Amino acid sequence: MAGTNKGRGADGLEPAPAVILVKPQLGENIGMVARAMLNCGLIDLRLVAPRDGWPNANATASASGATVVLDQARVFDTTADALAGLQSVYATTARGRHMTKPVVTPRKAAAEMRLQIAAGAHCGALFGPENFGLDNDDVALADTILTVPLNPGFSSLNLAQAVLLLGYEWYQSGDVTPEKAMPFAGDAQPAEKADLLRLFEHLEAELDDAGFLFPPEKRPTMVRNLRTILSRASLTDQEVRTLRGVIVALSKGRPRRPR
Amino acid sequence: MAGTNKGRGADGLEPAPAVILVKPQLGENIGMVARAMLNCGLIDLRLVAPRDGWPNANATASASGATVVLDQARVFDTTADALAGLQSVYATTARGRHMTKPVVTPRKAAAEMRLQIAAGAHCGALFGPENFGLDNDDVALADTILTVPLNPGFSSLNLAQAVLLLGYEWYQSGDVTPEKAMPFAGDAQPAEKADLLRLFEHLEAELDDAGFLFPPEKRPTMVRNLRTILSRASLTDQEVRTLRGVIVALSKGRPRRPR
Repeated sequence: MAGTNKGRGADGLEPAPAVILVKPQLGENIGMVARAMLNCGLIDLRLVAPRDGWPNANATASASGATVVLDQARVFDTTADALAGLQSVYATTARGRHMTKPVVTPRKAAAEMRLQIAAGAHCGALFGPENFGLDNDDVALADTILTVPLNPGFSSLNLAQAVLLLGYEWYQSGDVTPEKAMPFAGDAQPAEKADLLRLFEHLEAELDDAGFLFPPEKRPTMVRNLRTILSRASLTDQEVRTLRGVIVALSKGRPRRPR
Repeated sequence: MAGTNKGRGADGLEPAPAVILVKPQLGENIGMVARAMLNCGLIDLRLVAPRDGWPNANATASASGATVVLDQARVFDTTADALAGLQSVYATTARGRHMTKPVVTPRKAAAEMRLQIAAGAHCGALFGPENFGLDNDDVALADTILTVPLNPGFSSLNLAQAVLLLGYEWYQSGDVTPEKAMPFAGDAQPAEKADLLRLFEHLEAELDDAGFLFPPEKRPTMVRNLRTILSRASLTDQEVRTLRGVIVALSKGRPRRPR
């Protein structure tokens, strides 16, 4: 796929926002931006007057294989040129700009972009040079300001990390991974309650035999506490078998009470 | 503050999760981790057997001033040693580990950590070395697996970026920035409706005079369309005055219809 220019949607990826780097300085940062973009399914990279020209070997070296993004990157002379074709533009800034313009978080920007793209529109985000960020004339070209809420005492992000945070929110906004899952190793399954009950009874029988569940008036509480521990572990069928083996192993050779 | 070890809560930051880097290789990456941590209000950095020893000048060079994190970093021989004092540990992995252990997204992990810390518990996240990630024995020490949903065709994150995504979610989970805000430049305020109406009427009077709102049967629709455009712009009081000046300037010297 590298070397061809399929535009948005190449590599089997969905249509996604463009990333526009204005006057980026270090090729290494451009490469890390490409990597962060591809991590998040973004492939439309636009470069406005990159300081060291284009292509840039340092970018390739730091892209960790995200060459599909670099190979399709387009270079423009001005920010205005780079915005052609886009219908909605976000300007990423760390500080306020004294402009009466909406300011959104990356999460909100991603949600808005998702709606825009679903409606067939093309959108993108501007990122300024490493040292000073976007100038106010570039910000004025954007519809919306994007600011990442961060530690106010130390909020300056590396360029690739700023791109990553928007890309991350973009990817999450379209992702269906459950926030919490419990996969089972191999072909294990959650233990069936009857098997779990036999484990409880096996353990309790051995502990009765060993004189541990004593005195009798405390036995019900002790049994409940042990059953609570084992229930909370959400055991699999295989783990129930393992623990029954553990009980047998620990009990082996122990003197038995006469029944 | 640099050089002292105040542990969690130093620098006026709230108690926050620890970041444990297992066998990190490049000092540069450790420095970028420190920067990403401080961006997100994290300061408890623990290093397990860093390859190039500690302290590391490359780490300092790439931390962009996050020295408070590096100066307080603690070094341990083993992962188990580094986990002492923690009550809940997340293992960050990009791939499944065939362990029956809960798997959460960064957003869910951050929400869980927020609850744990609010309850007085100490928690942290493990990150493996740059080349191979955590080994299975380290993952087995964790309560929960943390996996970032990303482009499955290109999901390998740089170490500092993996830390950033958890830190970002941590910071967002405690942040109250509105997802969308409209700040006003200077002491501007949203325009009052009576002033907006005077703008409409001023424009419409000049357009009547110029013969633009013609023929008469189309005038109501044309007026509504213009009012819709100007309403959608959510003008400030200052902007209303600016636009009235624009109308005056454009109309200056235009031949007038006799009234």
